[in-house]
Amino acid sequence: MAFNRIFNFSAGPSMLPEEVLQIAQKEMLNYNGSGMGVMEMSHRSKVYDEIIVAAQAQMRKVMNIPDNYKVLFLQGGATLQFAMVPMNLMTVNGKADYVVSGSFSKKAAEEAAKYGNVQIAASTKSENFTRVPQQNELKLDPEADYVHICYNNTIYGSVFNYIPETGNVPLVADMSSCIMSEPIDVTKFGVIYAGAQKNVAPAGLTIVIIREDLLERTPKEYTPVMMNYKTLAEKNSMYNTPPCYSIYICKLVMDWLLNMGGLEVMQKRNTEKAALLYDVLDNSKLFKPTVEKQNRSIMNVTFRTDDDELNAKFIKEATARGMSNLKGHRAVGGMRASIYNAVPTEGVRALAEFMKEFEANNK
Amino acid sequence: MAFNRIFNFSAGPSMLPEEVLQIAQKEMLNYNGSGMGVMEMSHRSKVYDEIIVAAQAQMRKVMNIPDNYKVLFLQGGATLQFAMVPMNLMTVNGKADYVVSGSFSKKAAEEAAKYGNVQIAASTKSENFTRVPQQNELKLDPEADYVHICYNNTIYGSVFNYIPETGNVPLVADMSSCIMSEPIDVTKFGVIYAGAQKNVAPAGLTIVIIREDLLERTPKEYTPVMMNYKTLAEKNSMYNTPPCYSIYICKLVMDWLLNMGGLEVMQKRNTEKAALLYDVLDNSKLFKPTVEKQNRSIMNVTFRTDDDELNAKFIKEATARGMSNLKGHRAVGGMRASIYNAVPTEGVRALAEFMKEFEANNK
Repeated sequence: MAFNRIFNFSAGPSMLPEEVLQIAQKEMLNYNGSGMGVMEMSHRSKVYDEIIVAAQAQMRKVMNIPDNYKVLFLQGGATLQFAMVPMNLMTVNGKADYVVSGSFSKKAAEEAAKYGNVQIAASTKSENFTRVPQQNELKLDPEADYVHICYNNTIYGSVFNYIPETGNVPLVADMSSCIMSEPIDVTKFGVIYAGAQKNVAPAGLTIVIIREDLLERTPKEYTPVMMNYKTLAEKNSMYNTPPCYSIYICKLVMDWLLNMGGLEVMQKRNTEKAALLYDVLDNSKLFKPTVEKQNRSIMNVTFRTDDDELNAKFIKEATARGMSNLKGHRAVGGMRASIYNAVPTEGVRALAEFMKEFEANNK
Repeated sequence: MAFNRIFNFSAGPSMLPEEVLQIAQKEMLNYNGSGMGVMEMSHRSKVYDEIIVAAQAQMRKVMNIPDNYKVLFLQGGATLQFAMVPMNLMTVNGKADYVVSGSFSKKAAEEAAKYGNVQIAASTKSENFTRVPQQNELKLDPEADYVHICYNNTIYGSVFNYIPETGNVPLVADMSSCIMSEPIDVTKFGVIYAGAQKNVAPAGLTIVIIREDLLERTPKEYTPVMMNYKTLAEKNSMYNTPPCYSIYICKLVMDWLLNMGGLEVMQKRNTEKAALLYDVLDNSKLFKPTVEKQNRSIMNVTFRTDDDELNAKFIKEATARGMSNLKGHRAVGGMRASIYNAVPTEGVRALAEFMKEFEANNK
């Protein structure tokens, strides 16, 4: 079956704004009269420098990032950050608090245990991660080098409904699947990191936003130069060749976000999109949400019927209608609709309509 | 000044074949009727799996890689390999031999010293890297865990004119700037690695070709999961989201290479291209090569006049004629023409002609 453009509900990599792809397409062989495509440019050239500088400046504008934070364009995904954070930061008292609210925060804690004393501040694993630990459940150590959370749990479809209060201990957040989905107060965090492939850019780019005072901690002596935040910050993400093309697409996405009206507008749009699906779920006898109400993600909407065959049928029929990648992660089963910034409202509406139709046809 | 397509002699990132860019342009919003661009695809999807599997299979064909080698698609560039190689492999006797033939092999040795005993087997630093150490100069330790070389020195424009004989000690080679420029006997190497941004794909992809028995060494206990060769090999480069789009372009470049006739044809073409420039240099009273004859690279041709102002004038005038990025690295000065696979012969010929013209006009 051949499609023009489908509605792609992939958890990541995921849809990019069509306007962004059109610009990239147009500039593929010749960027702005330079006679080169962006993939072909020396990262040290003036023409490329303008792109990376603009990407950073636009991101600062989009997220309202204060001057005392550095924005780094790195590689290796959130998974490399699972090691990079402790290598650089678990180096004062040698211990850190991890809140476990899903698969990735669990993996982050496991990786960090190679580098020091990982303390589980709270976990909802015994509840199969149907919710996120609340503030009053967090056992926080005031001597911890940082507190780590995964803000939005891609697999489970849950999100923090509050920013943990951690006193003087820096809060480190993996925001891979929710970064730039709504305004966030960056000053509440010591480090925000995110794989770019959901809301920002193609896979291969990792965003790290880090408060400058944290760069003064002394990393473990075996830290690779490519994993040393301070060195990478001093070299402005150009210690070696950065993932240039992903950064270029990131710049186009930042332009698009600003053009759309910024994160306040995106938040409104994303909340409305998510509501289209949650309203169906709340009024359905067939489909069930898998996350407690207060922790429902506006980026990853997870749901299921009680019948695995019916789940499979739903996914198959949706795919045939040009709505793809709705299969839930094997850890949860059922369905997941990832509705990142670039997924158009009409796509979400089409899915909501199809859910109702499917329920009517499968009583 | 606005150009259509220039001749881009950048040391990397560098030119890609125009045919490859045209396919990427055409498929930007819709790959093969899937209704998605390649940047938007789940890395776990069937449609993307075909791309990554083909990229790997085509690369095996292009380089004639034996079955007992794994091909990995990683991130972080050669610089991350500078740490990854010793973390994984300097773990038997805790020592390795490094041949220092330029800036990057020197950096590799410095990084490796964090992880064990680095022995300098030979160095041409005192000669300002105008040549590569020869076999009879190498002080090799039969107990070393490996021997490391940088096969082609991008900055100095030099290349190994032989494959070091290392007995039972595995040879590890950084081939960032010469991979796939000519046929190479992979069986002579334990590990070949390369940043992709010169001959293979856009920046953000790192190729690692590793002999399977080396995966059985026990990495340092603090090795991040994203730097563990064995784990990455077992997960077929998909422990987390790989740099999907760069891998797609890599696949298109592999198709292009096979279509061109493979590496024998590329070697002939590259040798002829390089000869166009070296012939001018050998017959010039103005321009001088900076590398000894036996170690001249066919990928990076370095040269200079004795007059810095004249060097600057040459670069400026060449740029105005659509021949860009000819400035040599600051460590060498003068000029450097990087003439990777995708730089067309007509571009090299235009440069050779301009060199002669410039000499005639600046006697």
